Formats: sequence, structure tokens, C-alpha cells
Amino acid sequence: MRCLTLKKLFFPLLIVTFLLSALSHYMKWGAVIEFACAGLAILFAAGLLGKATESVAHYAGQRLGGFLNATFGNAAELIIAIFLIKEGLFDIVKASLTGAIIGNLLLVLGASALVGGLKYKEQKFNVHLAGQNASLMLLAVIALFIPAIFVKTEHISEHDTMNISIIVAAFLIFAYLGWLFYSMFTHKSFLGDHEDTKADHGENAAWSKRMSIILLLVATVMVAFISEWLVHTLDTFSARFGLSELFVGAFVVAIVGNAAEHSAAVMLALKNKMGAAVEIAVGSSLQIALFVAPVLVFVSLLFGKEMNLIFTTIEIAAIGVAVLIATSISRDGSTTWFEGKLLLIVYAILGVSFYFV
Amino acid sequence: MRCLTLKKLFFPLLIVTFLLSALSHYMKWGAVIEFACAGLAILFAAGLLGKATESVAHYAGQRLGGFLNATFGNAAELIIAIFLIKEGLFDIVKASLTGAIIGNLLLVLGASALVGGLKYKEQKFNVHLAGQNASLMLLAVIALFIPAIFVKTEHISEHDTMNISIIVAAFLIFAYLGWLFYSMFTHKSFLGDHEDTKADHGENAAWSKRMSIILLLVATVMVAFISEWLVHTLDTFSARFGLSELFVGAFVVAIVGNAAEHSAAVMLALKNKMGAAVEIAVGSSLQIALFVAPVLVFVSLLFGKEMNLIFTTIEIAAIGVAVLIATSISRDGSTTWFEGKLLLIVYAILGVSFYFV
Amino acid sequence: MRCLTLKKLFFPLLIVTFLLSALSHYMKWGAVIEFACAGLAILFAAGLLGKATESVAHYAGQRLGGFLNATFGNAAELIIAIFLIKEGLFDIVKASLTGAIIGNLLLVLGASALVGGLKYKEQKFNVHLAGQNASLMLLAVIALFIPAIFVKTEHISEHDTMNISIIVAAFLIFAYLGWLFYSMFTHKSFLGDHEDTKADHGENAAWSKRMSIILLLVATVMVAFISEWLVHTLDTFSARFGLSELFVGAFVVAIVGNAAEHSAAVMLALKNKMGAAVEIAVGSSLQIALFVAPVLVFVSLLFGKEMNLIFTTIEIAAIGVAVLIATSISRDGSTTWFEGKLLLIVYAILGVSFYFV
Repeated sequence: MRCLTLKKLFFPLLIVTFLLSALSHYMKWGAVIEFACAGLAILFAAGLLGKATESVAHYAGQRLGGFLNATFGNAAELIIAIFLIKEGLFDIVKASLTGAIIGNLLLVLGASALVGGLKYKEQKFNVHLAGQNASLMLLAVIALFIPAIFVKTEHISEHDTMNISIIVAAFLIFAYLGWLFYSMFTHKSFLGDHEDTKADHGENAAWSKRMSIILLLVATVMVAFISEWLVHTLDTFSARFGLSELFVGAFVVAIVGNAAEHSAAVMLALKNKMGAAVEIAVGSSLQIALFVAPVLVFVSLLFGKEMNLIFTTIEIAAIGVAVLIATSISRDGSTTWFEGKLLLIVYAILGVSFYFV
Repeated sequence: MRCLTLKKLFFPLLIVTFLLSALSHYMKWGAVIEFACAGLAILFAAGLLGKATESVAHYAGQRLGGFLNATFGNAAELIIAIFLIKEGLFDIVKASLTGAIIGNLLLVLGASALVGGLKYKEQKFNVHLAGQNASLMLLAVIALFIPAIFVKTEHISEHDTMNISIIVAAFLIFAYLGWLFYSMFTHKSFLGDHEDTKADHGENAAWSKRMSIILLLVATVMVAFISEWLVHTLDTFSARFGLSELFVGAFVVAIVGNAAEHSAAVMLALKNKMGAAVEIAVGSSLQIALFVAPVLVFVSLLFGKEMNLIFTTIEIAAIGVAVLIATSISRDGSTTWFEGKLLLIVYAILGVSFYFV
Repeated sequence: MRCLTLKKLFFPLLIVTFLLSALSHYMKWGAVIEFACAGLAILFAAGLLGKATESVAHYAGQRLGGFLNATFGNAAELIIAIFLIKEGLFDIVKASLTGAIIGNLLLVLGASALVGGLKYKEQKFNVHLAGQNASLMLLAVIALFIPAIFVKTEHISEHDTMNISIIVAAFLIFAYLGWLFYSMFTHKSFLGDHEDTKADHGENAAWSKRMSIILLLVATVMVAFISEWLVHTLDTFSARFGLSELFVGAFVVAIVGNAAEHSAAVMLALKNKMGAAVEIAVGSSLQIALFVAPVLVFVSLLFGKEMNLIFTTIEIAAIGVAVLIATSISRDGSTTWFEGKLLLIVYAILGVSFYFV
């Protein structure tokens, strides 16, 4: 009942928050109000973008649809990041990528496992998939860690650093395409509860084909606008509250940009579809690490700027521990409430540490 | 037979070593003799403290008893550490916590697996428990590693470092209480050979309820006295033998303080109750990392001092590799003699490295 | 058919390349040509050395044979390294050991899994062996990491660094001997597909006992000569192509020295004997890390030089990530083409990073 009301209110709220955000931006209501309005608006716009992508994917057929979902599932993050790059705010881009990865692995997965685990004693999912995900996440960590440690301990020029970044980015995209081919074609059945997820996503696709495409375009434009407004408030907002840009990027922006996925995963966990919840959380992290991040390196080149793939030590440490604990917990193909709590505690420890930087 | 004699001699030896230690301390027989006497005395007093705790726990009923055991199982270490904090010897506290964690994970677990493995080809235990233990140990490492790397690579004031330490300490205690609730209530049966252990511990509780409580109090007081005497000899003793305080704290104090657990775990392994041996070794490490260490941060505040949770790089490295190899070996729910040998070799490598600092 | 031709051509090519290398060396044809000739010659000589060792091992009976195989399987690397030590080129020795370890774990294992996986959907092998291998590799990483982090963060004199190195080296050899005893005697059947491998190796042993011993001696002498010639060209060669000695040691020398194993492992994977392929790749890494590297520390003492076991940060990082990803992928006792691709991508990322140092 409550859920139905929320669904009915979605479009009105989407429009109201968008208009409010636009008004606050153009009438200069001040950084805090502008930030709050943009944050609220992007919550709904990103939600619409996600649903529209799924709906278009639904009509595109299983394979092309899966590819669309996998490639544009983090379109909101990608658009926000592009606006940040345009402004040369590379550090915030990397912080928000870091935040999106650890947010998915710790907050989304943790909340799902905790909430689902309070209802069901043990929630199982495909153990093969968990193993592959672990190896892929490890690849992502390695691809961030290796160039960083080389650059930090050896004398490598800025030019060579960018060269390494470009080559590594290309390898990551190559790995990600291989993963799509592997999980959708050659080893589809092997990796189990994919069907589940799809069915679940499909259920939400209540729009016609034409409508879906229109909504996808509308949502993209809305996200793009709000992202620009949001980005412009960041420095004033963080200065006002004494927050580092790192914290704002890694926790505030990342949580706002991922809210739709958060709620979807928790809902699935409550229906005992932990496999689908894991796929959203881990799949989204993988997509950001192996696809969004490297694509942004090339995007920066298009803008005539050079954003390399060298993350800071604490960002790599944060991603590293998030991957370690998430894979340690999910590797056995099951979760319990306590494992969810552990993930949330690690997220909190990271949040506290980033806050004091 | 030999074992029976040892049991009969326990109380006489306890009293004799305690008196010797007291004499050597008050009559100032010199740091080396005082250290030796106190070390010997604490061996027996800590043993009595452990047995009395178990016995009280036995009468307190299964649940409260389990909680008592889990909370005061490392009372001796806790008391020693409190006296070190009172003297402001924070570095030795951290070294002895480090030593207790790696000692349990490498020396106790390694000796148990090696000795048990020489008698039985393969010793199995609950694989779920092993997995959960691995994730909890990982949390402990993360909780030490993340604040440390933030403090070491970013500009974080001493005041903020203490704030981070307090918050992280609170989170660790919160995680530990969750673990007790989880393993004793919601997922008791799920985590298997607990029963075994309990039965085994129970078997030693040959005292009446009243006697147990009296012995618990007596043992606590004895440990407290000896700890103070021991702490006072540490710097002279380490100076005399050219040992760093780090080495004395991490290896000498830690081994002495844990001797009772060492022998108990090895005995259980010899009876092919590897699950119980693992629970002692890993459970004790977890307790120190997730309960004793964070509690000591708050204890230091009570003394008007500020001991943060920032361990040195080599301490974190030592704990990190101990957790890695111990979880790698125990994750499959079985051990062999060779795996025990591996753990002991890692312990030896750490010992050699600490020795030369 | 193609394979048969190659076999027929093996001895002629061995002799021709050896003579060419000798000529180029003594007639001073220039570093590039000398390097190319020596590289080609050592490819065949190392191949002969490997086959002759297997053949002698075959006649020595299962146990002594297994020991011979395990101990002298990397004789070529050992001989090359000895000549490097004689010249005092410790950095290149360590680089080539690093290269041999990551080459086996990433390139050999990756190529085997990829090529084998294109033919078979999933290739399985003994899961116990995979777990033990993971723990042993972890020991190797720990034994390199711990002394290095102590030396890099604490004040440890050069003399003490050498002492630590000698003791740790002794422990590693002790662990390796324990492993041989464990896997060949006490837990032979437990570690499964050993038989397979042996059978497979045996199949190639087409020489008589006497012939095998003669060929073993001849191959050793040839490898020794070519190694010396190769070593002398390294600095000129790397200078000419603007390559760091690190890159030449870790990638060029290591690939050349391991070529025989590379092809053997891939062939086995194509016959769906992934267990044997894994044993070659992982076994060879283990042998280098736990046997060849520590033996070289003692060899350096024989030459009146002091090569310690302290590897550079990036070498340890490279070995660490190689072990992490290889164990993450092989721990479940099965591989697929995509997992092979992942390993090769990590190898490529390392190659690119080393190239730009």
C-alpha cells in the first residue's frame, strides 16, 4: 500500500524536485539550498534513468538488453563525472568513483544482507558467480594499485603516467567486454541466478516500447542538467560545512547518485532474491571500476584534459579493503544478518576516516 | 599419569611462584630474576584465572556462561595491559596486543595443527565457522589498517586521531557484541562444533559454585599484582639483554600471558577436537582485536591518558599476514601437519624480524 | 604432424643455435645479435635440460624422481642466476626471479586456462592441491614482504638485513623440504592428480637411462655456457633499446628461461589435463620462491658476496598481486577461458608498468 502510494507519487515528485532545483539554481538561492534541491532531484531523475534503461533493455531482447543494462546501468554516475571532468575537478571524480564502488560493496550489499538476513536465516546465491565476481573485483583493485605504486615509488614522468593510465584503461575495458561476452554468451547457464534478476527487473517495465525510449531520453537530459547544477554547488557547500571535497565526493555524491540501486537491492533481499541483490551491488561496482572509470580517462582526452587513473593511497586502501571484506563474505555463496552488519561497520569506519581528512 | 601429577602440583606451584615473585620484587633481587619469577608466576595465575572463569561460566548457565567466557577469556592480558597503560607504556601495550593476536593465530593454531596432524591425517571442523572467523579477523585488520593509513598519509591532527580511534573502538565493540549475539543466539546451531568445546571446557570445572567465584577473585588479584611487578622489570630486563621493548612486548609478554591457552589448544588437537582448538586460538585473537584493544582505548581515557588505536606499520603488517595465512589455511575447514608447520614458520619469520628491529 | 617435425628438428636446432651463440659471443658480433643468439640457444638448451631431468627422474623411481624433478626443475633459472650473482648483478637476479614467479602464475597459467578453456567449458583439478598451493604461495609472499617492510620502515643495519635474509632463506628451504615430504609421502593420495602429471611427463622420456644422464650433463654445461654469454650482453642490450635492466630481467630473461615450461603447460591444458598444467605453473613458481631464491642467498655467500632477500617495493607488489589473482582464480579447483584472460591482463598491466620505470 505504502509502496503503491510511492509509485503514484514518483512522477509528480520527479517533476517538482526538478523544477525546484532549476529555480534554486537560476535564482541563486545559496549553495546549501541549491545542493539540497539538486541532491533530491537527482535521486528521482537517476531512478527514472535506471528504470527507463531497464525498460528499453526489456524490449531490446535478452542479449542486447543485458548489454544495455550492463553498460548504461551507471549512466547517472557517468554523466555526473563528465560534468566534473569538464570543470577539471579530477580529484572529486576519483573520490566519487571510489565512493560509488565502496558504497555498492559495503552499504548496498551490507544493507541488503542485514535487512534480508533479519527475515531469512541464511540467503544463498550462485557460488560460481560469487567466485568470478571476486576475481574481477580483484582485477579492478590490481589495476588501480599497480600503476599507483609504480608512480609513487619510482621516477615516472607525468607523460608516462598518462600513457600507463591509457593502456591500463584500455585493458580494463577489454576485460569488461570479455566479462559481458562470458556471462551472457559462453557461460550464461553456469553463472546461475541471472534469470531471477532479469525477471525481477522486467516486472517493473510497465511502459510501452516507445514510451520507454522517450523516458530514457528525458531522464538523460534531466540528469545531465541536474548534474551540472549539483557540480557547481560542491565547493561552496563543502566549505560551508567544513567537509573536505574528498568526503563530499566519496560519500555525499556517491550515496545520492546510487540511491535508486540501494532501494532496489534491499527490496530484492526482502523477497529472498539475494542473488539479484548481489548482482546489483557487485555488478554495479564492477561496472564502475572496469568500465566507467577507464571510459572517463578517454572522455577527459576528448575534453583536451588529461585525467590519469592514479588514485590516492587512501582511495586505493578504501577500495582494497571493501573488495577484501565483500569477497570474504560473499565467496561462500550465502549471507546472514551479521555479515551485513560487518559490511556496514567497515563502511562506517571508512566514512569516519574520510570525514577527518 | 604425568598429567595427573601436573594437576596435583598446580596449586603448590601457583603459590610458590607467586611468593617467589613477591619476594624478588620487594627485596629487589634484580630485573632479570624479578622478570623470570613474575613470568613464571603469571603463567600459573593466568592458568587459574582461565579455569576459574570457565568454572563460573559453567554455573552461570550456557548463555551467560558463554558470554562470560568470551568476555573475560583474556582477562590476564587485559589486566597486564591496564598496568602498562597506567605507566604510559602505550607502545608496549600495542606490541603485546600484536603479539597476542599473532601468537594465537600462528603459534597456538600452528602448534595445534602440527601436533594434531602428526596423529591424524586430516582434522576437520565447521566450515561455516571458519568462514565467519575469517571475515571477523579481516574486520579487525581493516579497523587497524584504515585509521593508520589515513593518519600516515594525510594531515590528521593528534586530536582528530584520538577521535577516530574512539569511534572505531566503539564500532569494534559493537561488532563484537553482534558476534556474541549471532554465535550464541540467532545462529548457534549453524556454527557447529561449539557444543564440543563447551563440553570440553566443562569437564575441567571440578569446583563448587562458591569455590569457583572465590578462585576467580583470588586469581584476578594475583594476576593484577604480578602484572604490576612484571611491568616494572620490563625496561631493565630488555635493556640487559639488548632486546627492543617491541620484541619483549610482542613475543615474551605475549607468550607468557597466553601459555594456558597454548597448552589447552594443543591438548584438544591431540584428542582430535580441532574445532575446539581453532575456537580457542582464533576466538582469542578475535577477542583481543575486537574487544580488549578497543576497551583499552576507553580505559586509557579513564586514567586521563590518551592511547589511540594507531599501530605501527610493522605491527599492522604482522597482524595482516598472520590473518591472511591463518584464514587461507583454515578456510576449508580442515588442517594437516604441514599447514601447522607453515603457520609456525611464519611466526618464526616474524619473530626474527622483530628481534632485529 | 607439425609436432612431429618439431621433435625431429629439436636436436639440430639445439646444436645450431648453440654454435651460433658461441660464434656471436667469441667473434663479438655486437650485443643485439649476441643477445638474440643466446636467447634462442637457451630456449632449446633449457628445454633439453628439462626433458633430461624428467627422464632421469623417471628412471630414479617415483619418489627420488619426484624429488629430482621438484628440485632441479628450474635448473636453468638457477644457473643463469648464479652467473648474474658472480657478476654482482643482484638487482637483475631479483628482477629475473620476480619475472619467473609472475610469468609462471600469470602468463603460463593464464595461457593454459585461456587456450584450454576455448576447447573445454570448464577444466577441473584437485581442489585440495589448489588450497595448499595458495597457502604456500602466501608463505612465499610473506617471506619476501615481512623482511622488506621491516627494513624499509625501521632502522636495520645492512649487517642485520643480511642476517634476517639468511635466517628467512633457511626457513623457506625448510618449508619447501616439508612440502616435498608432505606431497610425496604423507599426503600423496590426498593431493590428487599427481599421477596424471607423472604419467604425462613419463610419456616424453624416450631415452635410455644412460643416455638420460649424459644428456642431463650435456644440457647443464650448455645452459651454463649460454647463461654466461647472455649475462654479458644484458647491459649493452638494455641500453640499446632504452629498456631498464629491471624490465629485461623480469620480462625478457624470465620468458626466455621459462619457454619450455610455457609450451608444456599449454599442451597439457589442450589435452584437458589442467591439473598437470597448474602443477607446472604453480609448482614452478613455488620452487623459485621457496627454493631457488633462498638457495641463491647462500650461493652468494660462497662467492664471497652478500645478496640479501630484500626485493624492491614494486617487485613485491608484482609478486603479491600475481599470487592474489592466481589463488583467487584457482582456489575453486577449476578454470575457464575468461579466468585465463584475466590472468593475462594482469600480466600485461605489470608488463606495461615495468616498461615505464
